[in-house]
Amino acid sequence: MNTEKDIIQRIGEKRFQHTRRVVEEAVRLARFWGADEKQARLAAYYHDCMKIRDKKLLFQACKDLGLELTQELKDSPEIIHGPLGALAARKYYGIKDEEVLHAIAIHTIGEEDMSVLDKIIYLADYIEPMRNFPGVEKARKLAYTSLDEAMVYALEHTISFLLDNKQVIALSTLKARNFYRKKVNQ
Amino acid sequence: MNTEKDIIQRIGEKRFQHTRRVVEEAVRLARFWGADEKQARLAAYYHDCMKIRDKKLLFQACKDLGLELTQELKDSPEIIHGPLGALAARKYYGIKDEEVLHAIAIHTIGEEDMSVLDKIIYLADYIEPMRNFPGVEKARKLAYTSLDEAMVYALEHTISFLLDNKQVIALSTLKARNFYRKKVNQ
Repeated sequence: MNTEKDIIQRIGEKRFQHTRRVVEEAVRLARFWGADEKQARLAAYYHDCMKIRDKKLLFQACKDLGLELTQELKDSPEIIHGPLGALAARKYYGIKDEEVLHAIAIHTIGEEDMSVLDKIIYLADYIEPMRNFPGVEKARKLAYTSLDEAMVYALEHTISFLLDNKQVIALSTLKARNFYRKKVNQ
Repeated sequence: MNTEKDIIQRIGEKRFQHTRRVVEEAVRLARFWGADEKQARLAAYYHDCMKIRDKKLLFQACKDLGLELTQELKDSPEIIHGPLGALAARKYYGIKDEEVLHAIAIHTIGEEDMSVLDKIIYLADYIEPMRNFPGVEKARKLAYTSLDEAMVYALEHTISFLLDNKQVIALSTLKARNFYRKKVNQ
């Protein structure tokens, strides 16, 4: 099996180009923060491997991989690809490193007390070189100054964005924000 | 016992004037929405009865009334007076109406699927005549148009305010916001 072709066939060439940039950013962050480059590369490479645009195909993939659709996942289908991607990375691509799988699983919603690898993947996805939302420069600066401050910044901006766009906000995202906000306030 | 004197001695004359305005607004909302005026008056009258400014005295009152200080309450002492007020209303002032006590308990943080009385107290507190934050006019208009839309507006503004002010956000507040946002989006 050609893994790259397989993923591109599922998520499209454009999104896979984003994946390449997240790999690049994640490796740079891992080097900067003295984390494991190989883990960062792997987690970044697979982080969006199940980001299927078509809802029907996405729900079918959940069935295939045995991902239970909780109310929260049903409310926000755009967060499904995190846990689904971790299942796919394990089953389809033979990834066994639990730390890598965990970073893939939570890369969209975050959680309390994340590992350095978790934070690197979350932030690499947020600041990869082609991101250009207002505030991305500050996020980039923070990611290379303090991972925790960068997490607060990214999580708070994400919550504001979801409020403004009338979308459901995952409880895990708020828990993560409160956790890092308290940590940074200290 | 003179209840009014007792409450004023605890929370101060200025805050008690706020309480009088919340009573006024809650009764008006109850009339408008065909809810029980007596319940609205009672819940509004006691809603801030334990809003003690001094932290030491506040924590002592929690001990006296047997309110367990969860991590969430410790993180946000300003939300303690809700559940504490409900306990005080029952024990000190003989209030037995569970609907009234519930509205007092959740008046600061909100929750999913609130009763009409819960919403009236939450909103009366938010829009009473002397409130003058940016957006209060819209909140007032919504409170007399749709209680659910007013709840979304108040909850989203509260979450934004807490984000901007680097304060912890109660999970119950986010759950309430998601609940009413979904309801209103439908």
